Amino acid sequence: MRISIVGLGLIGGSMALDLKASGFATEVIGVDISESHCQQALQRNLVDRILPIEQAIDQSELIILAMSVHHIIKTLPQVLDQVESQVVIDVGSTKQLISEAVKDHPKRANYLGTHPMAGTEFSGPQAALKNLFRNKVVIFCDVQESSKSAILIANEVYDCLRMPIVKMTSRQHDKHVAYVSHISHISSFALALTVLKKEKDEQHILNLASGGFDSTVRLAKSNPEMWSSIFVQNSENAIEVLDNYVTQLKKLRKAIESRDLHLLNSIIMEANKIKKIL
Amino acid sequence: MRISIVGLGLIGGSMALDLKASGFATEVIGVDISESHCQQALQRNLVDRILPIEQAIDQSELIILAMSVHHIIKTLPQVLDQVESQVVIDVGSTKQLISEAVKDHPKRANYLGTHPMAGTEFSGPQAALKNLFRNKVVIFCDVQESSKSAILIANEVYDCLRMPIVKMTSRQHDKHVAYVSHISHISSFALALTVLKKEKDEQHILNLASGGFDSTVRLAKSNPEMWSSIFVQNSENAIEVLDNYVTQLKKLRKAIESRDLHLLNSIIMEANKIKKIL
Repeated sequence: MRISIVGLGLIGGSMALDLKASGFATEVIGVDISESHCQQALQRNLVDRILPIEQAIDQSELIILAMSVHHIIKTLPQVLDQVESQVVIDVGSTKQLISEAVKDHPKRANYLGTHPMAGTEFSGPQAALKNLFRNKVVIFCDVQESSKSAILIANEVYDCLRMPIVKMTSRQHDKHVAYVSHISHISSFALALTVLKKEKDEQHILNLASGGFDSTVRLAKSNPEMWSSIFVQNSENAIEVLDNYVTQLKKLRKAIESRDLHLLNSIIMEANKIKKIL
Repeated sequence: MRISIVGLGLIGGSMALDLKASGFATEVIGVDISESHCQQALQRNLVDRILPIEQAIDQSELIILAMSVHHIIKTLPQVLDQVESQVVIDVGSTKQLISEAVKDHPKRANYLGTHPMAGTEFSGPQAALKNLFRNKVVIFCDVQESSKSAILIANEVYDCLRMPIVKMTSRQHDKHVAYVSHISHISSFALALTVLKKEKDEQHILNLASGGFDSTVRLAKSNPEMWSSIFVQNSENAIEVLDNYVTQLKKLRKAIESRDLHLLNSIIMEANKIKKIL
């Protein structure tokens, strides 16, 4: 199948690698507003050709939108305006506003919203990796709104990437990812800011950063454009989980301030229950 | 040199492995209040013999205290009461209160406070690892209070473990580790609690946990006894950094709530500066 990938970053580039390697994509056409991304994607053989989006749509059976959600929400309706029988999927990290943006579109059924839950803190075509998605979960949203052929093709795509599929509404999706992904990033950005601010006064504080710090702050390296648009589109859920998070921090603060060994012990034992799922 | 290690957990056990492998320790005597820890340490050959602490002190040239800081602060003065020429080091994650507890002890100079900045989220003798410490930093505190021979022996110990040494006061130490270690753990415990609380309502929320969540929540598996006693002993610094952290979270909250793409972008770009040191 000839496919177009719009947005040649970490996710789009990594999908290109696996879809070509599996033979599912006989040709990958790349689309990106960044000239340097296009050049890098060609050099790394992520894509076979670069085309403007209109021509790419005309020449493909499947179009994958892999830009920031901010760009997906603007581009998806335009893509649907142009498609005939082509299938369109997006891989954005928010779903509700994107889904609403095409709710009444005559070609709505050609589209399926998906979210492959994989990534790293790096971005751009140079960050693309083989097997990035393997054994991670992909979420399909609002499948009842999509045609059988759209669902069939999306199934094939994520079979090639070896991703188990979970189905839910885009509303459920946005709530869940706020808990399992967005809050981790908020927490990590805030942690980086806290320590960087202190560093101005305390020069060698960061020489000491060891294992624990690395892993909690790793996500703070994540792409600003991607994450600012996620937070804008999932504002309400992100605020809800952030408020719950601050409530838990206050509970810990109170126990630390009162130097209550027994209470701290029981709070941490409660947090330890995360072992059962990780 | 014959050494005693009091506390046969992750840190004590891992030190035993490296100090024996390097030949520095000709014999390692193990001390632990937990009978099962003693048995596991013997089975894994972390230690050669188990003795009660009084006998272990008498038969060693070096005593390493590797328990929770809560136990170190009670045990260190008793150990110093008994030593003659032996050197005593501790490897606790807080230093100021421990240092104060022996400030006027006649054998104060036999003791040096150290903190090897390495670890994992696992605990107990089974968690002990070879080369856990290699190329991580160790902090020596208040070296002017220790005898030349205590410093010399501590230097040899951490040479064997391949750890570069940083020197500071115990007061500076406690402030710095609050920023580069303790807040990461507080953040991670709170994150685990937030998500576990939500899970009660939303059954399959955790099936979705992907890379980002794993790495930020990993530390929430850490040992309750160890961390509750760290927070009690470093309460003031932990509260200071926690308050700074919540200030940064509020800044992010405001930008997310106002859906201000530009502001979010600039905050995340600021957080990205952590790249320069990680």
